[in-house]
Amino acid sequence: MQNLDEHTITESVLATFQHTQNPRLKTILESLVRHLHGFAREVRLTEDEWSAGIDFLTRTGHMSMGGRQEFILLSDVLGLTMLMESINHHAQGEATENSVLGPFFVQGRPAVPNGGDISGGLPGTPLYFAAEVRDVHGTPIAGASVDIWQSDDDGFYDVQREGLQEAVLRGQFTTDAQGRFWMWSIVPAAYPIPYDGPVGQLLTASERPYMRPAHVHVLVQAPGFERLTTMLFLEGDPHLDNDPVFGVKDSLVKVLEQAPAGTAPDGTPRETPYSVLTHTFKLTPTGGAS
Amino acid sequence: MQNLDEHTITESVLATFQHTQNPRLKTILESLVRHLHGFAREVRLTEDEWSAGIDFLTRTGHMSMGGRQEFILLSDVLGLTMLMESINHHAQGEATENSVLGPFFVQGRPAVPNGGDISGGLPGTPLYFAAEVRDVHGTPIAGASVDIWQSDDDGFYDVQREGLQEAVLRGQFTTDAQGRFWMWSIVPAAYPIPYDGPVGQLLTASERPYMRPAHVHVLVQAPGFERLTTMLFLEGDPHLDNDPVFGVKDSLVKVLEQAPAGTAPDGTPRETPYSVLTHTFKLTPTGGAS
Ligand SMILES: [Fe+2]
Ligand SMILES: [Fe+2]
Repeated sequence: MQNLDEHTITESVLATFQHTQNPRLKTILESLVRHLHGFAREVRLTEDEWSAGIDFLTRTGHMSMGGRQEFILLSDVLGLTMLMESINHHAQGEATENSVLGPFFVQGRPAVPNGGDISGGLPGTPLYFAAEVRDVHGTPIAGASVDIWQSDDDGFYDVQREGLQEAVLRGQFTTDAQGRFWMWSIVPAAYPIPYDGPVGQLLTASERPYMRPAHVHVLVQAPGFERLTTMLFLEGDPHLDNDPVFGVKDSLVKVLEQAPAGTAPDGTPRETPYSVLTHTFKLTPTGGAS
Repeated sequence: MQNLDEHTITESVLATFQHTQNPRLKTILESLVRHLHGFAREVRLTEDEWSAGIDFLTRTGHMSMGGRQEFILLSDVLGLTMLMESINHHAQGEATENSVLGPFFVQGRPAVPNGGDISGGLPGTPLYFAAEVRDVHGTPIAGASVDIWQSDDDGFYDVQREGLQEAVLRGQFTTDAQGRFWMWSIVPAAYPIPYDGPVGQLLTASERPYMRPAHVHVLVQAPGFERLTTMLFLEGDPHLDNDPVFGVKDSLVKVLEQAPAGTAPDGTPRETPYSVLTHTFKLTPTGGAS
C-alpha cells in the first residue's frame, strides 16, 4: 500500500474495506469509492477544483441547520432524490407514484383532526382537500397516518418564516374507517427553492430555473404498506415542465375544482368561494404488489 | 421532463446543465451526475441509506469548523486526495513526489528565520531538519517559500490543543541563496487521524486502522515551479504500510540520523544528542519537466 499512483490507488482503497462487518455497508463503500475515483479520473480533477469542492460541501453543511437542509436540496437538484425514489418505488399498477420528500419535512408536526384548518389564518384562496387512502385493489385503509405540508400564498414554508412560534400549513392526519381524510387550507403557491446558499449558486452558474411548480406534499404511512412519499401538483402551473427537483409526474397533476360559497362537503358553512382538491392515494403492500 | 424513471432521469438532469456558462464547470457537473447516479443505481440505494448519507454529510459539515476540516479528512480516507495529487503531479524524473496536504494545514502561519526553533518548548527528542530546494536539474532555488507543520511528541497538532495562543510546530521558511533552509524542532509522533467524528465512525465500521505513520509536512512554493505538497516519513515506523490516507511513498521515507551533543551544523551548541533529518526537494517547472 505504498507508492500508489492514479491507476493503482483505487484497488488499494477498496482493499481497506475488506473487514467491514456489515456486508451492505461494504458494498456501498466499494461502489462509492469506484464511482468517486472514476469521476476524479474522468475530469482530471485539479487541486483548485478539489478545494472548491471541499469548500462547497463545507458551506452546504454549515447551511444545514435548524429548518434548513441544504444537502437534501443538493440531492434534489442533482436528481439523486428522484432517482432513489424511482429505484425503490416502481409504482406498480394502480399504486400512487412517488416524488421527493423535499427539505421542508419536519419531525414533530402537530396532529390535526379531520376537518381541521392548517392555514393558521394566513391569507390566500381557501382550499378544501379531501382524499382517500386505499390499497391497490381499492380497499380503504383505516388509521393511515397522512402528513401534509405545503407553502403559503407567498411560496414560503413555516420553517422559512422567522419568529413563527407554531407549525402552520403542516399537520398529521389519520384516515377514518372509510380511509378518508379531509382538511381546510389555502392554495399553495409556486416557490423558488432556497437559493441563498451553495445550491442556489450551483443553479445560478448553470442558469437553471429555481421555481418549483405549486404543490402539496403528502406522506402516507400505514402498517403492511410501503411508505408513500409524494405530492400533488396543480394543472396549468407554468413551472410543471421545468421542476428543478425533477418531481413532476402526470398522474400527480390535479385540476383544482372551484366551489361556490355555501355549505361545504364536511358541513362547514363557507361565506366565500373556495378551491377543492381531491385524490385517491393507493398504497403498495410491503414486499411488492400482490 | 416529467414522468422520469430510474432509466430516463439521468439524461434529463444532464440536460439541465446545457446552459452552464463555464465549460469546465459543465464538464464537471455532467461527470459528477453520471457517476453519482451510476452509484445509486448500482447499489440500489434505499431511502434509509440515502437518509443516512444526508445525515453523514451534514454531521461532516458541522464538524468542519475552526481548526477541524472533516471533509478533507473524508477525502483523505477515501483515497480521493491522493488520487487528485497523483493526477496532477506525475513527479517526472527526479522531481520530489507529492503526498496529501492533510486537514491540519492552516493559513496565517508564522514566518520563521532559518535556524529558528518551532518546538515552542514542547517536550520530545530534539530534531535538526536541514534541507535544500532545487530544480529537477539540481540547480538551487533561492527564495522558495517552505511551509513546515508537524505533530508533537504526543501526536497532536497545535490546532488540536485547546487554549494554545500561538502556532507551534509550524512555520514558513524561506530558502537562502543556496536554496537551503534549516530549523530546530522535535521528532514528530505517529498519530491517529481525528476519530471522534463521522470519518472516525466510518473507519470503525470498516475496522480500518486510524494511525498515520509519523511525518513532517512540507509545502514548497516558488515562482516558475509547481507547488509541491509532500511529507517526509521516518524509516522503521510500524504504520508505514497501512497509512489510512494512502500517502506513503518509498522516496519520502527517511532514515533519522542520530547526532551527539556538541556544536550543531548551524553553530548551535547542543547539550544533548539530537536527531537529524535531511532531504533535497526537487521542483517541477510550471508546465511540466523541461
Ligand atoms: Fe415543497
Ligand atoms: Fe499530518
